[in-house]
Amino acid sequence: MPTISRKGLEMPESPIRKLVPFAELAKKKGHKVYHLNIGQPDIKTPQVALDAVKNANIEVLEYSHSAGFESYREKLSQYYKNQNLPIDAQNIIITTGGSEALLFALGSTMDTDDEIIIPEPFYANYNGFSVASGVKIVPVISSIESGFALPPIEEFEKLITPKTKAILICNPGNPTGYLYSEGEINQLAEIVQKHDLFLIADEVYREFTYDGYQHHSVMNVAGLENHAIMIDSVSKRFSMCGARIGCIVSKNKDVMAAAMKFAQARLSPPTYAQIASEAALDTPQSYFDEVIKEYKERRDILVSELEKIEGVVVAVPKGAFYCIAKLPIASANDFAQWLLESFDLNGETVMVAPAAGFYSSPNVGLDEVRIAYVLKKEDLIKSVRILKEALAVYHQYSN
Amino acid sequence: MPTISRKGLEMPESPIRKLVPFAELAKKKGHKVYHLNIGQPDIKTPQVALDAVKNANIEVLEYSHSAGFESYREKLSQYYKNQNLPIDAQNIIITTGGSEALLFALGSTMDTDDEIIIPEPFYANYNGFSVASGVKIVPVISSIESGFALPPIEEFEKLITPKTKAILICNPGNPTGYLYSEGEINQLAEIVQKHDLFLIADEVYREFTYDGYQHHSVMNVAGLENHAIMIDSVSKRFSMCGARIGCIVSKNKDVMAAAMKFAQARLSPPTYAQIASEAALDTPQSYFDEVIKEYKERRDILVSELEKIEGVVVAVPKGAFYCIAKLPIASANDFAQWLLESFDLNGETVMVAPAAGFYSSPNVGLDEVRIAYVLKKEDLIKSVRILKEALAVYHQYSN
Repeated sequence: MPTISRKGLEMPESPIRKLVPFAELAKKKGHKVYHLNIGQPDIKTPQVALDAVKNANIEVLEYSHSAGFESYREKLSQYYKNQNLPIDAQNIIITTGGSEALLFALGSTMDTDDEIIIPEPFYANYNGFSVASGVKIVPVISSIESGFALPPIEEFEKLITPKTKAILICNPGNPTGYLYSEGEINQLAEIVQKHDLFLIADEVYREFTYDGYQHHSVMNVAGLENHAIMIDSVSKRFSMCGARIGCIVSKNKDVMAAAMKFAQARLSPPTYAQIASEAALDTPQSYFDEVIKEYKERRDILVSELEKIEGVVVAVPKGAFYCIAKLPIASANDFAQWLLESFDLNGETVMVAPAAGFYSSPNVGLDEVRIAYVLKKEDLIKSVRILKEALAVYHQYSN
Repeated sequence: MPTISRKGLEMPESPIRKLVPFAELAKKKGHKVYHLNIGQPDIKTPQVALDAVKNANIEVLEYSHSAGFESYREKLSQYYKNQNLPIDAQNIIITTGGSEALLFALGSTMDTDDEIIIPEPFYANYNGFSVASGVKIVPVISSIESGFALPPIEEFEKLITPKTKAILICNPGNPTGYLYSEGEINQLAEIVQKHDLFLIADEVYREFTYDGYQHHSVMNVAGLENHAIMIDSVSKRFSMCGARIGCIVSKNKDVMAAAMKFAQARLSPPTYAQIASEAALDTPQSYFDEVIKEYKERRDILVSELEKIEGVVVAVPKGAFYCIAKLPIASANDFAQWLLESFDLNGETVMVAPAAGFYSSPNVGLDEVRIAYVLKKEDLIKSVRILKEALAVYHQYSN
């Protein structure tokens, strides 16, 4: 029997994969499970996007241009310009989700065994894309105590080797909800220019910022044009995760020429989803205002409820819709499994994502969980009540 | 300025990329260009697939399961079983086009610098996927004189090294239209078992066979269960290239477990396109009968017209909708460019794909072109007339 690749063995599993059978078991027992573990929003997709697909007159569902519809790229460029980002259509290649944009970015800038520095905790699938691309993640730890602010820039400096090709950030962050300040972005801009690196910024949550904080894009830093690569996606912005449309954006012509070759090899991004994504750009501002208001309220409720639980530390998110909470337990993995396997409050329980899966360093964040506030407020309140009761029982049980 | 990756530099361009500006120029001059160069069929997508998307009631366009809709996988399994292929739902992962299926197959079976043997000429994007995956293609030449039959199995045997992990075939072949016989599939089955390799078969044109020839799938060879990986796609079967839905199929549990991790990293295949693809499985047999009849007539006309031109050699395709023709010229590249740049017959010209781009060996197939018979019959007849006149003029001009 032929053996599979090392890559295939090394590809990480999702941080919640091991919990899935326990969640299924809980549901079989008739328990209701509140999913705090996933990034699938319950927000309705803009009607204008859904209608565009319904009303599309297609006879032959053809390939699109490998870079995506020209009309979509033009309109997207305008969308960015309205956000004060100087991005032209030729700086954009439409991809199959932000995932593919990231794969193109890694493929265009890094070779086998090259290194990429990423502040951790980070979006767990960065691990998978790195293994798939044959590159090595070098993590730099940010801590819950500082709210997951950018680690001191000297910590990055220490990790730079001749193999280092890029720094990758997620801004605002999944799983941290941290929003980098202009000063932090400038520090990163300086270090990548100094060492001739790329700065790849996953900005898919750009619109989700709270408390008046402004998002600072890598596409808006003077002098960074040849270093900056932005990853974007419609998934969260328009609550259309299932579309699988994103884009890679850069002013660096060599990067875009290389990314274009990756794009040509896979022919084109999905046509229906591009129709929906292009139309979604006509979504009225009121939709976003309502969505942001809703997420902010959810965040406020989640954080204030969590903070009422003794021993729980929360890093208040400034953006996106995740937060990391430190729980008064030894192993979030064991606790998350126990919640599904052995606990319920009036027939209800919660599923959380153990945060260890978002760290690349071993034995870090073992007592942390990621909570996505993608559920409606009453469900969030119920969920935190369940967590609180569960922690009390778990302590008795484990003492 | 940071430098891009070697991968990014080495990613090949599409064989027709250099011709695109010349085609645009020809169109600007007001010339009509018949596109014999592309695999985008003009056949209508089944109405049942288009209607399913129109009638879908979506409020939140959510992620699907990473392996694709369970309902789609079940129905697809039944489709295969009706074709006498013993494939269960758990042997299938739905992918974003056959392209992604191939990337998952390479990633799951091969590491950096591993080797894959492919009979050439082959689908040009195999080059791109190999560079992206960091693996090396070892070509074995099949020739137009034998109609692109499988090269003698000893030729494969000679190329096997400790780095060899797989043999990849496209059956029926793009660009050759060759359909492997049962004997040829069995020879390949034997050699991969002997050397413990994978046999990856791109069978996306499976339904397109002519003259009563039967398709022989790698999924139907006893003893090959742990070696065989099938790549499939809805693109050509249902003329829905823009859906971007394919699948990777294998009975090898380790391969599927690894492929599943690649699938999880990119979250899910596109939702709209899965709705269309699942519904497409209800396409009545009459649709296929008509499509196959149409392609067969096109092939017959194309081949008989081409054979009337002095000095042209055609390998009669038994399947798919491509053929390779050898032209009485030194450089198909130059000729293809000249057709667009300097030739027209009553304001019309043709665009062909120089076949050199489908070979991995240098300086092979320089006088060959790939012709896709995806145009209606009268256009094919006109196209070949243009080719004939062009060859006559080109000879005067180059002599």
